[in-house]
Amino acid sequence: MEWWEREDLRYGDGELEFAGRRVEDLAEQFGTPSFYYNGRRIVANVQRLHDALTGAGLEGRFAVKYAMKANRFAPLLSHLRASGLVGIDACSPNEVEHAIACGFAAEDISFTAGSLSDHDLQRLSRIRGLAMTCDSMSVIRRWGALGPGREIGIRVNPALGISRAQNDKLRYSGTNTTKFGIYREQFAEAVALARQYSLRIKKIHFHTGCGYLTPQLDLWDAIIDSCLWFVDQLDTVEIVNVGGGLGVPHVAEDAPLDLNRWAAILARHFRGRGQRVEIEPGDYIAKDCGILLLTINTVEKKLETVFVGVDAGFNLAVEPAVYGLPFQPLPARLLPGEKQTVSIVGNINEALDVWYAGIAMPPLTEGMTLALINAGAYSSAMASNHCMRGDFKEFLLV
Amino acid sequence: MEWWEREDLRYGDGELEFAGRRVEDLAEQFGTPSFYYNGRRIVANVQRLHDALTGAGLEGRFAVKYAMKANRFAPLLSHLRASGLVGIDACSPNEVEHAIACGFAAEDISFTAGSLSDHDLQRLSRIRGLAMTCDSMSVIRRWGALGPGREIGIRVNPALGISRAQNDKLRYSGTNTTKFGIYREQFAEAVALARQYSLRIKKIHFHTGCGYLTPQLDLWDAIIDSCLWFVDQLDTVEIVNVGGGLGVPHVAEDAPLDLNRWAAILARHFRGRGQRVEIEPGDYIAKDCGILLLTINTVEKKLETVFVGVDAGFNLAVEPAVYGLPFQPLPARLLPGEKQTVSIVGNINEALDVWYAGIAMPPLTEGMTLALINAGAYSSAMASNHCMRGDFKEFLLV
Repeated sequence: MEWWEREDLRYGDGELEFAGRRVEDLAEQFGTPSFYYNGRRIVANVQRLHDALTGAGLEGRFAVKYAMKANRFAPLLSHLRASGLVGIDACSPNEVEHAIACGFAAEDISFTAGSLSDHDLQRLSRIRGLAMTCDSMSVIRRWGALGPGREIGIRVNPALGISRAQNDKLRYSGTNTTKFGIYREQFAEAVALARQYSLRIKKIHFHTGCGYLTPQLDLWDAIIDSCLWFVDQLDTVEIVNVGGGLGVPHVAEDAPLDLNRWAAILARHFRGRGQRVEIEPGDYIAKDCGILLLTINTVEKKLETVFVGVDAGFNLAVEPAVYGLPFQPLPARLLPGEKQTVSIVGNINEALDVWYAGIAMPPLTEGMTLALINAGAYSSAMASNHCMRGDFKEFLLV
Repeated sequence: MEWWEREDLRYGDGELEFAGRRVEDLAEQFGTPSFYYNGRRIVANVQRLHDALTGAGLEGRFAVKYAMKANRFAPLLSHLRASGLVGIDACSPNEVEHAIACGFAAEDISFTAGSLSDHDLQRLSRIRGLAMTCDSMSVIRRWGALGPGREIGIRVNPALGISRAQNDKLRYSGTNTTKFGIYREQFAEAVALARQYSLRIKKIHFHTGCGYLTPQLDLWDAIIDSCLWFVDQLDTVEIVNVGGGLGVPHVAEDAPLDLNRWAAILARHFRGRGQRVEIEPGDYIAKDCGILLLTINTVEKKLETVFVGVDAGFNLAVEPAVYGLPFQPLPARLLPGEKQTVSIVGNINEALDVWYAGIAMPPLTEGMTLALINAGAYSSAMASNHCMRGDFKEFLLV
């Protein structure tokens, strides 16, 4: 069994099946490039989180807020809402309005972001029921001035964490201090400022980084420990948002996250505490529910390298080229023959536009459909029209 | 005098002026985030190339093709066309049609790209007069089948070159072989294939990389030398396209490109040759003609770092955060006071969303307008709606 194989993603008689459909049928009907999201898989991902948290003893004490910046495709949001299993984590006024447009209630939406303008705050302030988390003293001051006496959350920074790239490529450079949240050293000052505007600090929100798999669970443990210090400074905290950060495997060597261990760590820290727990995963919910279908248009050996050219580039899904997170490619149809090492490249005139450098693949020919897995998060959501190659379609499969 | 200062970008009475306008006036009228492009500067950049090439003895023997992927803002393209000084380098069928929509003739457009689909080739094939450059054996074969007997160019790969990031961050990894063009080892085969379809190889096109400044001119010399080998294999070549790749300074330490030396190197190689020379710069023409105006909404010290938050993030201009090419920030109004080291950060919830880490700036306050220079290329052209923070305006100033 291949590492990526699962019930809704596997070969049957040499034909790749996704969400109960033959991938080749999808490509024939709708063309490429196109994203397909398995609505059952995305709900199953959420349900698995619920089961783990319930199993760990947190039943009735947690909420899952989907980080919609991972994938805001409207049908997907409405589908998630209909499941009744998630709220929303939003990070811009447009996101809040889009979530509401897709059926979410303002009360289900948690807002956390930095560098907010006065205009942002005014827009957010008009939305009744929205749970606002302040990321800076500046926002506490300006939010307080807009509406003294409200309940707020405060995002805190434990000065630990990992980045989505799971490597140093895109870490904040130049200093270890990041722009996110309030540090321990300034927390008392933030609390005093909130008090000045009679803001009640109902929630503490952790900025914990992202991309956690099982080897990072010790760090997860340390971060929660570090963050609860903030919670314990106050007697008003009812909700602790521990961020998202749950990762999914990208290559065979990645061990999947041990979700029960992850939940057990969380439950251990919250045993005997009165607060409710919020989590806000994006990748974990959306990433492996999506595939990107492409058509191979070029197969050609240049020097020692076999290049497989496809009809879309890194501008439609930046993670492989820019974040170093590869998307396993799978041909829609398996041809007989030996595997060969190839490099899969896009149609953008930039050297970085490589989907996968050096991967052993079954025979590939011009005209074949290729699926890239793990394209459900931070792909279409970050797509650009670079080189005017920005056209794509999206489909929710239910 | 500051390194970035020039006639159309300087302070007068403490007010930043760009293209003869007070930057603060622009922000007051049109809001932020907004891009402004100086139409005079962009034409001056092209004129400077003409002057250098003419001065080096290439008068009447060269053409400048603007790489429109750098910035396809329609008014800018029309303005460039009206100058009569440039054609277009396009890399997708949509780009070709957009250039024609902006007034360029198909005969002024040179097309070069990889991973082309059959549908791409059919679209391109219908456009009469377009100069097609084939990047692979696959395209020679398919283009030849669509229209035997036509004139074509061939993109060749000298297996040398530098990347836009001017560092290793985003280089093609895993092998030194890139997806671009035909290598020396396969050139005879490509020529034979073209002959099979009676395609006449009228142009040789170099893939040379990008970001060349004066310290890279020796490499420039070596690349031209290496590429002329291809030209000399044939007696049908009338045009040699030496690519773009001319860079602009991003920080005080970058010496500007010595354009006369660059042109002299080119002229020396082409002395006594019958071919015409084409160049296709993007950055050099468009980058320094553009500024991005932002509003500071947050100024706050966290631990030892002063963060200056602005109303746009890396999704509107990816070069600083993703390519490591910083955009010098300049306040629209100079306030009295000492300089202070700050980090300028955007409003996207990602750790990499930093405009400039650790730069000495005059006093900055919430509400001030900040200009980022060098935002004229690969900024709006690559913008995404990540976090639904994709709104911006663009203006051509003439």
